[in-house]
Amino acid sequence: MSHDGRVSTTDSPDTTGRRRGRRPAGQDTRTALVDAARAVFAENGYDGATVRSIATRAGVDAAMVNHWFGSKEGLFAKAVLQLPFDPMELQAEIRQGPDEEMGERIVRAFLTRWDGAGGDVFQALVRSITGHEQAGHALRDFFQKFFTALITSIGSDRIPLRMTLCASQLVGMGMIRYVAKFEPMAAAEIDTLVAAVAPNVQRYLTGEIG
Amino acid sequence: MSHDGRVSTTDSPDTTGRRRGRRPAGQDTRTALVDAARAVFAENGYDGATVRSIATRAGVDAAMVNHWFGSKEGLFAKAVLQLPFDPMELQAEIRQGPDEEMGERIVRAFLTRWDGAGGDVFQALVRSITGHEQAGHALRDFFQKFFTALITSIGSDRIPLRMTLCASQLVGMGMIRYVAKFEPMAAAEIDTLVAAVAPNVQRYLTGEIG
Repeated sequence: MSHDGRVSTTDSPDTTGRRRGRRPAGQDTRTALVDAARAVFAENGYDGATVRSIATRAGVDAAMVNHWFGSKEGLFAKAVLQLPFDPMELQAEIRQGPDEEMGERIVRAFLTRWDGAGGDVFQALVRSITGHEQAGHALRDFFQKFFTALITSIGSDRIPLRMTLCASQLVGMGMIRYVAKFEPMAAAEIDTLVAAVAPNVQRYLTGEIG
Repeated sequence: MSHDGRVSTTDSPDTTGRRRGRRPAGQDTRTALVDAARAVFAENGYDGATVRSIATRAGVDAAMVNHWFGSKEGLFAKAVLQLPFDPMELQAEIRQGPDEEMGERIVRAFLTRWDGAGGDVFQALVRSITGHEQAGHALRDFFQKFFTALITSIGSDRIPLRMTLCASQLVGMGMIRYVAKFEPMAAAEIDTLVAAVAPNVQRYLTGEIG
C-alpha cells in the first residue's frame, strides 16, 4: 500500500522513462528497485529472486517493493517485462465468471490491455524473450505460474499442456496483430477477434485435446 | 533447372555459411545473389523486387536465380528468411488431401520442418520480423501470399481473416516451442501437438469464425 492507500496506475512511468507528479525521492527508490530487480532476476531466475534480496541490492526497505509494485509478480511484470498492467489484477478479472466463458474473457482481456498499451510494448516483450537467455527463463517461470493458476481453477486435466496451448495462441495473436501486423488482424475490432479466437482458447482450456 | 537437372537440397549452405561439394564459382554466384536479394527486398519490398533487378545487382544472369533458388519465392525464403525448406514444395504438399484434414497437414508440416531445422532457425526468423521494419514488410507480403493461396484453394469465406488466424496459431506455436521453450510444448511429440492444435487450425480454415 502507498501512503495514499493505493498504487495508482497513473503513476507508472511513461514511455520516455519519466514520471508524472511524484517527488524525486520516490522516483529514486523506484528506479533503484527496477535496476536491482533486473539484475537479481537475471542472476537468479524468477523463482530464485526474493523480494528481500532485490530490496537489499537497491539499498531500500523491502516494504518499498509492495509500496511501488504490490508484489514480486508486480515488480517482475513492471520492471523486467514492462507490462502495462498488473498481472494479479488481470488474473482476478479473468477468474470472475463461468468457466465455459473463460476463453472469451482471456482473449478480450489480452486484447484490451495490449491495445491500450500500444503495439510497441508487445514488441519490446518479444525482444526480451528472444534476446536474453536468462530473461527468457524468468519469463517462462512467470507465465507458467500465471496461466497454470488460471487453468488449475477450472479443474481440467493436462494442465501444463493446456497452459502452453493457450500461451501459443495468445502470443501468436500478439505477434500477428502488434509485431508482424498482418491485416486484417492488425486493425480488426476486438469483438471480431474475440468471436474468432475465443472458441479456440476455450477448447484449449476445457475441450478434448487429443 | 541446374546443369544436372535439379536443385539438390543437399547443396544448401550449412550453418557456418560454407557449402559442401560445390566449386567456388557457384558459391560466389549464390552469395552474390543472396546479398543482392537482401538489399533489393529491403529497398523495394517483396512485391516490388524483381528477379531481374536482383540478378542485375548481383552481376549475374537472371537464370541463375532459378538455378540456385527455383523462384523469387525460393530466393526470398532462402536468402532473407533463411527458411530451411522450399515454400512452394510445402504448399504443394499441404494442398494434397481432403480439405477437412488440411489443418492437420499444416500443423504437421510446420512442426516437421522446423523441428528438422532446429529451433535457432525459427528464433532467427522472429528476430528478422522484430528487428527490421522493411524486412517485416516483405515478410508480411510473403506469408500473406503463401497462406492466402492455401486457403483460397478450399473455398472458405473471409479468406484474409482466416489467413491471419492460422498465422497467429502457427507463429505462436513456434514461439512457445522454439523460442520461449515452455514445457511440455517444447519437448512434446509432434503427434501430441498435432492432436491438440490441428482442430483449432481446421476451425480457422473451414469453421464458423463469428
